[in-house]
Amino acid sequence: MHALGTHLLVDLKDCQNDGLNDIQFVQEAMLSAARDAQATIVDFKFHEFSPFGISGVVVIAESHLAIHTWPEYKYAAVDVFTCGDTLQPEVAAIALAKAFASRNPSIHEVKRGIIGIDNIHRPHKSED
Amino acid sequence: MHALGTHLLVDLKDCQNDGLNDIQFVQEAMLSAARDAQATIVDFKFHEFSPFGISGVVVIAESHLAIHTWPEYKYAAVDVFTCGDTLQPEVAAIALAKAFASRNPSIHEVKRGIIGIDNIHRPHKSED
Repeated sequence: MHALGTHLLVDLKDCQNDGLNDIQFVQEAMLSAARDAQATIVDFKFHEFSPFGISGVVVIAESHLAIHTWPEYKYAAVDVFTCGDTLQPEVAAIALAKAFASRNPSIHEVKRGIIGIDNIHRPHKSED
Repeated sequence: MHALGTHLLVDLKDCQNDGLNDIQFVQEAMLSAARDAQATIVDFKFHEFSPFGISGVVVIAESHLAIHTWPEYKYAAVDVFTCGDTLQPEVAAIALAKAFASRNPSIHEVKRGIIGIDNIHRPHKSED
């Protein structure tokens, strides 16, 4: 079975790290997690909300990472979407669970774009 | 039951519109879909891959939209992640299915950040 993308839906509950409301901390944790997973970072954008909450996305050559934090609930919703065979998206997920000291993390893996039941696929997504 | 976010995983298969490989078309379709859903666009980033494929994210005040296209498979993976009660994420999903003329769209809705079984929640995510 060939899926074009692997998408991890990562829910980080009961986060003990106040960095959840620190845009610099969140950004560095996300970029570090992307690097840990061997991703090629293309661009990123983080935004701080009032009174609290950070949203951020990291565009990688292999798809994207996204995060939304709710510090008032000690919760962050993370997505790690990758394509290709070289990345290990779970490495990024685990790195973020550790960074925010989540006492109750969960990961759901979704295969996106199941094209066929054979393993033939064309090359794709080489960087410019 | 109170969920902090609603996340639509939208798979657009058998897309009949060649715009899937046109960065300007993809960007405009995504921004238009965000506006259709009454989202407040904060920022966006789109990237074109070689030999083909577009990735893009739209950061909205209410979370994000993301897209990855595989023109060679006539496929796009779309995510519409929203928080709050005012947006209609399915409006964005349907707008994108139409924009790319998908003959085989599917939508999976995931509730992210289920905090409690009551309906009490604090205000969050007002724009700066």
